[in-house]
Amino acid sequence: MSAGADRMMASVLVEPRRLEVRDVPVPAMEPGDVLVELTAVGLCGSDVHFFEHGRVGDLVVERPLILGHEAAGVIAAVASPADEHRVGQRVAIDPQRPCRWCPACRAGRSNLCERMRFPSAPPEDGAFARYLAVPADAAHPLPDTMSDDEGALVEPLSVGIAAVRKAGVVPGSRVLVAGAGPIGVLTGAAARAFGAAEVVVADPIAARREVALAHGATRAVDPDDVAALDGRMDAFVDASGARAAIAAGLRSLRGAGRAVLVGMGAASVELDLFLVQSRELVIEGLFRYVDTWPLAIHLVSSGAVRVDDLVTARGGLDDLADFFARNSAPDAMKFLVDPRVRRLDGPGR
Amino acid sequence: MSAGADRMMASVLVEPRRLEVRDVPVPAMEPGDVLVELTAVGLCGSDVHFFEHGRVGDLVVERPLILGHEAAGVIAAVASPADEHRVGQRVAIDPQRPCRWCPACRAGRSNLCERMRFPSAPPEDGAFARYLAVPADAAHPLPDTMSDDEGALVEPLSVGIAAVRKAGVVPGSRVLVAGAGPIGVLTGAAARAFGAAEVVVADPIAARREVALAHGATRAVDPDDVAALDGRMDAFVDASGARAAIAAGLRSLRGAGRAVLVGMGAASVELDLFLVQSRELVIEGLFRYVDTWPLAIHLVSSGAVRVDDLVTARGGLDDLADFFARNSAPDAMKFLVDPRVRRLDGPGR
Amino acid sequence: MSAGADRMMASVLVEPRRLEVRDVPVPAMEPGDVLVELTAVGLCGSDVHFFEHGRVGDLVVERPLILGHEAAGVIAAVASPADEHRVGQRVAIDPQRPCRWCPACRAGRSNLCERMRFPSAPPEDGAFARYLAVPADAAHPLPDTMSDDEGALVEPLSVGIAAVRKAGVVPGSRVLVAGAGPIGVLTGAAARAFGAAEVVVADPIAARREVALAHGATRAVDPDDVAALDGRMDAFVDASGARAAIAAGLRSLRGAGRAVLVGMGAASVELDLFLVQSRELVIEGLFRYVDTWPLAIHLVSSGAVRVDDLVTARGGLDDLADFFARNSAPDAMKFLVDPRVRRLDGPGR
Amino acid sequence: MSAGADRMMASVLVEPRRLEVRDVPVPAMEPGDVLVELTAVGLCGSDVHFFEHGRVGDLVVERPLILGHEAAGVIAAVASPADEHRVGQRVAIDPQRPCRWCPACRAGRSNLCERMRFPSAPPEDGAFARYLAVPADAAHPLPDTMSDDEGALVEPLSVGIAAVRKAGVVPGSRVLVAGAGPIGVLTGAAARAFGAAEVVVADPIAARREVALAHGATRAVDPDDVAALDGRMDAFVDASGARAAIAAGLRSLRGAGRAVLVGMGAASVELDLFLVQSRELVIEGLFRYVDTWPLAIHLVSSGAVRVDDLVTARGGLDDLADFFARNSAPDAMKFLVDPRVRRLDGPGR
Repeated sequence: MSAGADRMMASVLVEPRRLEVRDVPVPAMEPGDVLVELTAVGLCGSDVHFFEHGRVGDLVVERPLILGHEAAGVIAAVASPADEHRVGQRVAIDPQRPCRWCPACRAGRSNLCERMRFPSAPPEDGAFARYLAVPADAAHPLPDTMSDDEGALVEPLSVGIAAVRKAGVVPGSRVLVAGAGPIGVLTGAAARAFGAAEVVVADPIAARREVALAHGATRAVDPDDVAALDGRMDAFVDASGARAAIAAGLRSLRGAGRAVLVGMGAASVELDLFLVQSRELVIEGLFRYVDTWPLAIHLVSSGAVRVDDLVTARGGLDDLADFFARNSAPDAMKFLVDPRVRRLDGPGR
Repeated sequence: MSAGADRMMASVLVEPRRLEVRDVPVPAMEPGDVLVELTAVGLCGSDVHFFEHGRVGDLVVERPLILGHEAAGVIAAVASPADEHRVGQRVAIDPQRPCRWCPACRAGRSNLCERMRFPSAPPEDGAFARYLAVPADAAHPLPDTMSDDEGALVEPLSVGIAAVRKAGVVPGSRVLVAGAGPIGVLTGAAARAFGAAEVVVADPIAARREVALAHGATRAVDPDDVAALDGRMDAFVDASGARAAIAAGLRSLRGAGRAVLVGMGAASVELDLFLVQSRELVIEGLFRYVDTWPLAIHLVSSGAVRVDDLVTARGGLDDLADFFARNSAPDAMKFLVDPRVRRLDGPGR
Repeated sequence: MSAGADRMMASVLVEPRRLEVRDVPVPAMEPGDVLVELTAVGLCGSDVHFFEHGRVGDLVVERPLILGHEAAGVIAAVASPADEHRVGQRVAIDPQRPCRWCPACRAGRSNLCERMRFPSAPPEDGAFARYLAVPADAAHPLPDTMSDDEGALVEPLSVGIAAVRKAGVVPGSRVLVAGAGPIGVLTGAAARAFGAAEVVVADPIAARREVALAHGATRAVDPDDVAALDGRMDAFVDASGARAAIAAGLRSLRGAGRAVLVGMGAASVELDLFLVQSRELVIEGLFRYVDTWPLAIHLVSSGAVRVDDLVTARGGLDDLADFFARNSAPDAMKFLVDPRVRRLDGPGR
Repeated sequence: MSAGADRMMASVLVEPRRLEVRDVPVPAMEPGDVLVELTAVGLCGSDVHFFEHGRVGDLVVERPLILGHEAAGVIAAVASPADEHRVGQRVAIDPQRPCRWCPACRAGRSNLCERMRFPSAPPEDGAFARYLAVPADAAHPLPDTMSDDEGALVEPLSVGIAAVRKAGVVPGSRVLVAGAGPIGVLTGAAARAFGAAEVVVADPIAARREVALAHGATRAVDPDDVAALDGRMDAFVDASGARAAIAAGLRSLRGAGRAVLVGMGAASVELDLFLVQSRELVIEGLFRYVDTWPLAIHLVSSGAVRVDDLVTARGGLDDLADFFARNSAPDAMKFLVDPRVRRLDGPGR
């Protein structure tokens, strides 16, 4: 951080569907934090949800908010007792700031921390800004072989890893993934990296099915074809948030099969009670991730999972509004912003 | 078995809502079976469901069927290689006859056996009959301190044990049980025997709440009061099959809480997707039990769980129709039949 | 804490086998700490080991050290952000101060924290002193029904709870415990509280076997009689640290049985390789505890486990040397010190 | 099976270190069995142990015995209710014949079956013979892309899979394997297939280290170099049976690390008690495998694990004595016998 810099540019959601690039204070570090100058920040479906509706479930945007939490960058400053030698280090950021004291934290379930602060979840400002302050152990060093863009994509890959862990995917598993957006594609890729023998990805959009096939899926099908899998799959991950997809996915499971619900969308989901009971299905919700960054970085750097080709477009802070508009296009996967600049070709701050 | 006896009396469901006591062949033993002369057989909610609707889920009664599967009695004969010294032994019966070869069986999940034969589940005849043939290892010896009636009640207690195992109940757990029929009451009792610090049982009927309190519940509440438990419970077992009860029960769970769905009733259940995700709830269906008889017998014989006072009435085969009619009464818990007799005071066969 | 008090009396180990009561500074609180005025502190086997040898394994006493870590007392002061309303609260203390940041802490295994500071483990001063500063969430409120002495005994009970958790004890389990010192006795009591059907405690000293029987053991035997258990037990906890006891205990386990090694003593243990392999035994070491205080307090306050009758003698700081000398006597169980006084009848500070 | 054939050639261990090729009866099928004409049978370390010492642990060779249990072949006949259409099918054989009824079998731990019959474990005859009868579900179909030799090598790969499962190997794990014989090499290969980021194999013989490196090890070291791994590894599998290797391997584990003991050799193993306790290490013995054939076949047929290049030499029944003699040579990995012939170039039966 250049000496004396205490203001920065950020893209602020001032009301639903209205973003403004504003000059705001650089976030203050807490003891043990590092301040990261961000170079690549992805646009997430939950950002879009906040952008459009001003809320996700119980979380409501009540004052101007900086969105964004899929972030990579360079450590610009540290706060004691964080190691000052880390200044200059390239990092991918696990955006969670758990309290580390509540029962969930102490039990190793810090994603369920009662006092979690999460950048981009109101009222916590996020990463569509030049700087973000995070706990030192949440800033994971990137190897030289990984780009900053790949570093930002570690976050959605982390969701996929968390999902396949919960789904009990092991070598030889047969896995169904519903939805071939970035999370679905990366869940399929993670399932394959975990050794799944069969990874079927279902999506109504042909272009997305192609992306899934290029990222580890052994088969990509139209949602109508899922019915044929009745009772065959070991695990099902929903990354669609669609009621029909979840119903079909549950029916694809064998006895004792596991379903993990990741996708947002439908407010509620319908379970066929006799199906769930007679097959003793296990259904679990997913909320972010715990301890996934080291593995995600390993999977990308070792070549087991490819993420860089998921980038649909790159831009600066001024491009965000356009990216929000384009995010639901059939061919859209991941938009990345470099918050150091207004436009990719334009001047930085 | 008296020499030469090859016919017996049985109560047969000839069409929905119509039972007849008929003279039928004594069931044939398979190798390794024992033939049990039944002395106490309980009426189960699934029997009632078959009686009224002729089906449960995919299982359809297509020809006259003997219901009943909560059974105790005395070993009357054995088929090699079963131990012939067991003739005369009093036993409680785990009614499942798994194939022992399919992947589910080999994995220790024999309740999910692809080729399960289960007395009273069509087309397999059940236990409202003088004799039942079962694999020798499914006939569990009863200690002298346990009555035959208690032996029959080991089956519903087994459901409760299976439920609290799946629900992850451990010493100190806070557990909610919805529904105070026999399964709900015995689930509460099992939870307490597993060391739960708090066992809340919810039922709209005051008389049933009293029964729950007499069997280990630390508190019994009206379903309307469950809302106040929001986020407080470690585990939830539904033994009501009611949509509203399940919705409220899920909301009672803390982060990472576990729900087990046991009760039949509603065809489908509605999940609040944001709730399930933001708390990472785990929801699992229950289908019968695996390896619960030894523990259930231990719990009853050690006094940890009391079951004999759950018997609402006893009768013979001719009383069954009446028992089916009375089973849904508010004060009804468990009806027991002694299939050796037509009426309790009447002549045996 | 009386205003201005910044010195306190403490019993200090100045060299192996030599204790001195000294005037030392009151420990400084860290942010979020509470300062507890101690009223009951137990003497632990590891204290005795440090007292006699000046070390336990890699941990070496290199400068004068205050021992003691089984402690209860009253909150005398708090450091922000701890809740100031807690001043005056009676508490039992989980003595661990984990870093909350390392991989072990984040994974819910904070007892294995790489940067753990543990009172009485060099160089961290312990609880044989008037005051101890601990993190607020490590000071667990005591119900009115529990005495301070019982509060101090929550620590050894916690070891027992941690052991039976690792040993996989569930309702119906058959458990062998070797050694009937305080840890062995409380492990047996915990096993029973977890629903074990059979709890066999082995100890060569008849008086100790009696204590075990009074605390949940269903049978107490001489170590020579353990051989008869060959292959019968589900779980084995060694609280003796004796090579022969461990060898016999392992042989008592059925296939897939679990052994937990708690007792200190022998430097090494001999495994019969064919036995461990052909039965697929699981052997695990225990190091303190994670999240056991709430359950331990529940077990004592609910009457499931009795601890107060384990107290052999009570005294003040000046009595400690005598207690160390008497700790290995056959009839010795637990010595408690009230660090507010020099002698129980003598003047406080 | 050619009509009327009821005798076959087999290699029989008549006393320690003395084999004879004899004309013996074709084994009788039990109901549900298939009779497999064997085409490739591997020589296992336990065969060598029986050959040299006439016993392994409690298992003693008391009458002439046919060794061998790593087998593949073609189904020659079936016994009802096995599917007669399977005649002619190429299969790899899981040699275990569990009872399917005892508690271990019912719990999904059939490898610990109390009444297990295992070909080559006295008194059960094994696979160095033209035919072997096995339960139909133990004969796993081989895809066309896999050779019979590869089919035989599924057995040692199964041991490796069972070991890495028990060791908790998941994507990203750091794994140490001691010993680079066939089991060690295939354990390393399995660990890699399970996603381990680091697989270090230790063996004093350079040629074996090379084989390990060619099969998934990321590093191969001399046993003296294991000390440098102190506290770094997540999992350790011993495939050496050597006391020093096990001691060093345990020390390589991080807190909560898992060790699996597979290798036979030393009668006993020494544990450093403080190490096991202070790191809460988990140590487990391995005894064969449960449900590993489908995954092993998938790993070989998908190319994830290569096994065919582990074959040191092939021969007929007359070559076995020579193979036993050569099995301990530094460059020996796996000897395969085609039991249809006396010598590979000689006449068949």
